Order: sequence, then C-alpha cells, then structure tokens
Amino acid sequence: MLNEGILFTDHYQLTMAQLYHGYGLADRRAQFDYHFRSYPDYGVHQAGYCISAGLGPLVDWMENTWFDEQDLAALRTIRTSSGERLFKEPFLEWLEGSDGFQSLSMWAIPEGRVVHAQTPIVTVEGPLAVAQLLETALLNRLNYAILIAGKTSRAVEAAGGNGVLEFGMRRAPGAAAHTATRSALIGGATGSSNFAASYELGFLPRGTHAHSLVQVFIAECDSELEAFRAYADLYPDDCLLLVDTINTLESGVPNAITVFEELRKRGHRPVGIRLDSGDLAHLAVRSAALLDRAGFPDVSIVLSSDLDELIIWQVRNQILEEAGRYGVDADHLLNRLVYGVGTRLVTSDGCPSLNGVFKLVAVEGTDGNWAAAIKISEDPTKVLDPGRKRLWRIYDHRGTATVDLITESDYDPAARPIHLVHPGHPDIRRTLGATQISEVEPLRIQVLNNGERVADNLGDIEAARNRRVADLARLDPGVRRLVNPHTYHVSLSPQLSKLKQDLIADFRS
Amino acid sequence: MLNEGILFTDHYQLTMAQLYHGYGLADRRAQFDYHFRSYPDYGVHQAGYCISAGLGPLVDWMENTWFDEQDLAALRTIRTSSGERLFKEPFLEWLEGSDGFQSLSMWAIPEGRVVHAQTPIVTVEGPLAVAQLLETALLNRLNYAILIAGKTSRAVEAAGGNGVLEFGMRRAPGAAAHTATRSALIGGATGSSNFAASYELGFLPRGTHAHSLVQVFIAECDSELEAFRAYADLYPDDCLLLVDTINTLESGVPNAITVFEELRKRGHRPVGIRLDSGDLAHLAVRSAALLDRAGFPDVSIVLSSDLDELIIWQVRNQILEEAGRYGVDADHLLNRLVYGVGTRLVTSDGCPSLNGVFKLVAVEGTDGNWAAAIKISEDPTKVLDPGRKRLWRIYDHRGTATVDLITESDYDPAARPIHLVHPGHPDIRRTLGATQISEVEPLRIQVLNNGERVADNLGDIEAARNRRVADLARLDPGVRRLVNPHTYHVSLSPQLSKLKQDLIADFRS
Repeated sequence: MLNEGILFTDHYQLTMAQLYHGYGLADRRAQFDYHFRSYPDYGVHQAGYCISAGLGPLVDWMENTWFDEQDLAALRTIRTSSGERLFKEPFLEWLEGSDGFQSLSMWAIPEGRVVHAQTPIVTVEGPLAVAQLLETALLNRLNYAILIAGKTSRAVEAAGGNGVLEFGMRRAPGAAAHTATRSALIGGATGSSNFAASYELGFLPRGTHAHSLVQVFIAECDSELEAFRAYADLYPDDCLLLVDTINTLESGVPNAITVFEELRKRGHRPVGIRLDSGDLAHLAVRSAALLDRAGFPDVSIVLSSDLDELIIWQVRNQILEEAGRYGVDADHLLNRLVYGVGTRLVTSDGCPSLNGVFKLVAVEGTDGNWAAAIKISEDPTKVLDPGRKRLWRIYDHRGTATVDLITESDYDPAARPIHLVHPGHPDIRRTLGATQISEVEPLRIQVLNNGERVADNLGDIEAARNRRVADLARLDPGVRRLVNPHTYHVSLSPQLSKLKQDLIADFRS
Repeated sequence: MLNEGILFTDHYQLTMAQLYHGYGLADRRAQFDYHFRSYPDYGVHQAGYCISAGLGPLVDWMENTWFDEQDLAALRTIRTSSGERLFKEPFLEWLEGSDGFQSLSMWAIPEGRVVHAQTPIVTVEGPLAVAQLLETALLNRLNYAILIAGKTSRAVEAAGGNGVLEFGMRRAPGAAAHTATRSALIGGATGSSNFAASYELGFLPRGTHAHSLVQVFIAECDSELEAFRAYADLYPDDCLLLVDTINTLESGVPNAITVFEELRKRGHRPVGIRLDSGDLAHLAVRSAALLDRAGFPDVSIVLSSDLDELIIWQVRNQILEEAGRYGVDADHLLNRLVYGVGTRLVTSDGCPSLNGVFKLVAVEGTDGNWAAAIKISEDPTKVLDPGRKRLWRIYDHRGTATVDLITESDYDPAARPIHLVHPGHPDIRRTLGATQISEVEPLRIQVLNNGERVADNLGDIEAARNRRVADLARLDPGVRRLVNPHTYHVSLSPQLSKLKQDLIADFRS
C-alpha cells in the first residue's frame, strides 16, 4: 500500500530533498537527533520519566521501505501552481537509486529503558536528503509509542504490583490501537484485550464479557444468572463475570457467587468478577465482603471504567480508608485487584502528544570536517545541543541513576571527577567525584550501520519489559512520583556546553 | 496482515460469540446502535456538535474482511487456563461459514453531516454473534474519525473562512495519521501535509520547508538568504518561506522580501511566509507591515505552532486590537492568513477520545417478534433508548435545525403537531405545530442490506465536505459557538419514550 510505504511522510520532506539534490547536498552526510522537549504534563499530575518504545517497528519499517514504481508514479502526478511537474526526473532517479533508508546509520536507546527529556534518544547519520526524508515517519512512530509506554508505566506503578490490562482498542485512535497495545506491554501491562496485536506479540489476549451478553439473556429468559451460568459452563476455568449490568451488589455479585459455588462443586476454580461502573473502590470493598463471606477470598476483582494512574491511586487509597468499615482486610483486597485501563491509557488523557522533535545537529563539510548545526530560539529549552554526541547515564554510589550526561563524541567516560553543566544555564555546574560514582553507562547502542542492522532482538518485547523493571529499580522514587515528580538531572559535559555557547554567541553576533 | 483483518477486535467479542454459538443464539437477529454519549469537552471550550466521519472506510473494511485460514489458525492456538483449546471446532466452522460481515444490514448518517450526542448515528442489524464481532472495529473506526472531523470543523469555523491546513502527521498517534488527515478534510481543512493520504484522497499535499533547510545553508554558507533563494529558484511559483529560524523580523522577513522582489522581477508571484514560533499575532502584524511596505500586500501569512480553534480565535482578536498600532489594516491582514494546525488537531487536545458506544437495543425472539433490550444505569445519560428506531432532523420555519427526533420504526413524519419528549426526563415535553416546521428529514440512509452495499459514493470526500457546509449553514450559531455552546435538542417521540419508561419500570420491579 502506498500509504504504508516511504510516502508516509510530510510533503515538505520531499520538496526539501529535491532542493538538496538540486544543490548537490543530497548525499552530504548529516546527523539528526531525536529528543522530546519536556515530560508529559497531565495537568494535575506529571511524568518524571518516559519509557523508550517504537524503535523495533521503526527499524523493521525502514528496512522494508524504498521508492518503488507506484511511489514514483504518485510523485509524477504532483503539479506546481503553474502546472508543471513539481518533482523532476533527475530527483526521481536519485530517489529510486537511494535504496530507501539503506544508507543510514542509527544509534538509539533500546526499548523499555527509562528515557529523559532533552536527551538524544536516537541519532541518525547519513545522506542529508535521506535522513531528512525519514523525519516524519520517525517522529510518528516514536512520539506516540514513548508517550503510551510511559503512561502505562505510571499506571503499573500506581497499581503497586497488581496486574494492569490494556483495554483501550475501542477508543484508541484508529489503527494506532496496535501501537498502543505494543507500547502498553513495553510499559509493563500484563496483557491486552486486543486480539490481533496480543497474538502477534506472543501474549495471551485477555478479556471477560460485555454487558450485551447479560442483556441478551435478559431479553431471552429474563435472567442475569443464566447468562453467568452459560459463561461458566463454557469457560469453567476462566470464569470472570461482569457484575454491573443490573445492580452490582444486589444482583451481579450474588449471582456470580451462585455460579462460583456451582463451579466449585464441579471442581473448578472461579477466576473473579469485573466492576465497570459506579464508585469502584466502594463497590470493590462491598463485593469483597460478599465474596469473602461466601468463601471466595481469593477470586480476582477486576476494576475498569475510565481508569488512569491517578484514579488507580485514588481507588487504592479509598480502599485503605473504607475496607475496615465493612470487615474487609484492606491489604488482602488490594492484592486481589486487577486494573483494566483503556481510553485514558491509549489516548494519554491529559497530555495526548509527546513533543518529540528530530533536528539537524551536524553537517559534514566538503573538507570532511563536521560542522555543528544549531537552531536558536527565544525559548532556551528549544535551543539544540549541537554536534555529534554521546549519551551516558551516571549511577551514584547507591546504584541509583543520578544524571544523564550528554557529551562530545570523543568523551572519556573513565575520567574522574566528572564535571556537569546545566544545558540551559552554563553557569550552573556540579562535580561528581570518583566516590560518588558507581557506573557510567553508555545509554545508546548502534542499531544500523550504513543500513545494515547491527543490533540483535531489537523489537523483543520481553527484553524491553525487563529493561523497564531494571531501570525503574535504579530510578529515584521522587522521579517516579505520580504528582510533582523531582526533575531528573540532564547535564552537558563542559566541552559540549562550550561548543553550544560558542555557537549561540557566534549566531547572535 | 492478520492485524488488519477480522481479528482486529477485543478478545471478549470472540468468547461471547462462541457462547452465543453454543446456545443457538449466534444467528438470532439483533440490533446494535452506535451513539456517542456527550460532546467533546476540551476544558475551557466545548463542542456543541460533531461531524460524522469514518463510515466509508469502515464499510470498505467490512466488505473485505472474513475469517481466513490464518485467522482460524491463530484462534486454534489460544488455550484456556486448564490448557485446552479455548475456541472449539464447531465455533470455528461457524465463523468460517459466516462470511465475515456479509450478513449485516446497516443504517447510518452519511459522512460530513452534523451529528449530535445521544442519537443513533449507526444501527447494525443481523446475526447476534456477527454484529457483536463488529463492535470493536466499528467503535475504533468511528470514534476517532468523528472526534477529529468535529475538532477540525471548529478550527475551520474559528478561522472565519480562511484556509486551515492539517500538519499533524509527526505527532499523530502512529498509523492513525491517515485517519486524521481524512477526517480533517471531511471537517473542512483545505489540505494536509500528509503526502500519502492526500494523494490517495485526491488532494494536493501541502507544505513549505522546515528549519533544517535554513540550518543546512547556514552551516554551508552562513546565509538564510541563500536558503530562501535556493527555494525560490526551484519553486518560483510556490514560494512560501519559513522566516523564524534566526529572527523573524530582523532576518527572516527582510530576507524573504529580498527574494520576493527577485521573484517578481522574473515574473513570478511569491506565495507567502510562514511563522512558526513566538507571539504569532504580533509577528503577523509586524510582518504584514513589512510586506505591505515592500509592495507585497497580498502574499499569504501562514501561522503554525500548537494552534487549535481557541488559539486561532485569540490570534484573530489580538490582530484586531494590535494591527492599527502598526498601520496595518486588520481585516486585510485577517484575510491573508492561513492556519497550519497540527498536534492539537490530530490528538483532539483537551479531549482525546469520543465516548462512543455500540449497544444492543433489540433481539428478535423465536416467535419473530423483536424484544427491546435495555441497560439500566445509575447515570440517566447512560440508559439506552431501546428498540428499533428511526432518526429525524426537524427544521423550523426559518430552515434552522431545531431538534433531532428519535422515534419508533413506524413513526409517521407527516403527522402534525409533533410531540417531543426529553430523553432523560419524560415529564419535559414540547410540541411543534405545523407552522413551526419547515422540514422533517430522515437523517440516516441504508448503507448495507444483508451485506450488500445499497448506498453510492459512501466514502466520497467532496460530498462529505459539501454536507458539512450545508449542515452548518442550517445550525444555530449558538450551537456552533466555540465556548459554552447552546445544547442542541435531542428528543424522543412519545411512543418511544413510553417504551423506554415501561422497560425501566419493568426492570426495577
């Protein structure tokens, strides 16, 4: 399909590429950095970190994308205002000969890792026009994936070790549903209701039944209980019942208990109930009391209905306050909860976009020397860190990540002490002595070398999930806090800071 | 691809379908309605209407989707908790024989039309299990499309007749970028930067150049002017220059004017400039003053940078206040503006999801009589309007749409007077006499009849764009207002209201 190929791009990438081609600059080597400008701010709560995601599918796509006859034919149809062909044959020949993105090299932070604002998560190097043509697709594939992986990680943290299921397909932005599912799994979700995506990623699709099942049985035989019985008969070992179609406490839970008792007599272990409306914390406590009394203290209670990390946190706190009043052990109840998170997860409610950008940072001159490129802005957070760079994560003596350090490309990570300079305020400096440092870790791996893949298992979800768990264990709890998190430190090396300040001064003179 | 086929669905649709199959209910005829519960609320501003979108691609997909060998093989791999196959062969045989969605009939409001909360925009009728299996895909394809079409319509209205370009691809939710572009075009956008989607929909892709072009020339020859010259040389009749890479008023606009003068000498007409940062209204006024003075009073000024309907409205008002101070005619300036709207459009910033649902409303009994299905909720806006229904739009004596009326299926639209009942408060009633009514329009058309398409040009974008313009002209300005819009009336016929109240009473007894 043309719209999944290399023309999945903004028009201006093509007009710029043609210009570079016309000026003999198309094959000039250049570097572009991808970074996001600030952490998602959801209004009353804010992220202190994000989770890398989207890299595997991006690289898969790059390897299978080039200008084919259909693409070139499409380009030939585009006309200028004066009616001539916009894209001329010499440029189309160059496009055809460019072999897609096979000339690019790429360095990137693997999926699943904790990533921070203002750090170069991905760097692309290669022919200027080819790297330029990648911009839109790269941004499209990384921004949303990182946003959803980070949001999921927050929900998983709020859930305190209990399961989080991604249920968002019906309200997901169209075909992005699959990216949402994949990103949620990287972000720590235990499963998803999305059948196709779960299957393709090797996860068991998850789900119960909808209100419509109960409605059908009510229309048919006026009985919620018969709906539950039918479900239990067909799925005796996977019996999770939605109990809020009529009245949760007066009909749904008592009917579920009846069916659970019948299942138990037949030697099966009921799985649980799902609450999908009303005051979830209160209903969870009251339902738990009924289930406990009936001898089902261990069946799960799945909560759904416009959940997000903050509501999960609120529900858990309300349970801690209310459970005792109904004779329910709060900790026991919290441990049996599972959270179905849908709409607010897949739309990143409160902050539906990540402000990721892909900016030119260096161009190779005709003499073979690289010139750092910079774009000045009145907003200091929008001033790029120029030039070819490396990215390190420094762990303190406790093994906690303390700063992400952006340096010149020939930086020596073994040198001690390490001098840190604030990226926007060069006068703010800090020094870490040898005793304050347990590790200086290079954060990025080389993914592509002139189009050839040089990293293994790039899109491996299990590996990404493990990276997230490992990184969060080494992240300060203050940075992980749901509301008003500490700002994680991102610093420049003195040499990179000086380059940046020199370029700014040069620019303003 | 498996993930674009019929398994693009939530897991529970399949488990429910198998249950219906096991109970001999799979082929029982049923009706489901699609409606959205409330208008998008963006926080400080709110929608009073939405625009229908997504129907054409949904029906295209339905016609080309069925359970093939790959899908069945995937289903055979899924196991229960006790290790058995979850989906049994008899059900898989039924799935294979169901021929996808070819047994469904569908009635729907065509794309581009103004649509309202709580009205049945789409009704699907057919075998219970088949209609159930459609739920997730239908919701996924309609919710986001309607959301973005409505948001775009608001931006277009705020722009007061000037062009709105969709620039959101880079921050769009992954593959939903194409749906965003199509929906934006239905919502009234004049064009899009998305090359592939524009091309496939028959629109000229739009765009200028990025900051990187100027950066490259600065790295190469230290000159923004040379970047502009290169662009003007290559695209003399489509020369739109991005002027904020260095300094808008001191560098960008003066350099653009130099190039425009050169173009003019060579007989070309420059197109305009684009402002992408800073105080857009102020910079537009100051740039207009410079362009006017240089003899370019008619070149466009394209504004971009996190625009949405409210910011467009603010920018226009600021220009009305500020223009005179710089000797610029405000109306003249407003008429030369074009708005590039990106991130906030394609993510529906402030309200990133539409709360659309697909609910069972009727089931055919073994006796051939239809039973209305209802789902009660403590929230009255969540109580369904039951049964098989029709939907009408009533226009008053001025030709303005005054109410959308939901009725029983055998309602006589010629009867006068027309009695209207509030959907949630049956005591609130209103009567429209013959003199108050100019037209009673059936809002929905039949789209599918037992799987056969019975509507022409379903996905025609131009027709949808024209419908939007015609509908908005007949919509009360108060309902179209950006902030605190009037609530458009949606009513039930007395007979439908009585059915609903009887079912509720029955349910609660």
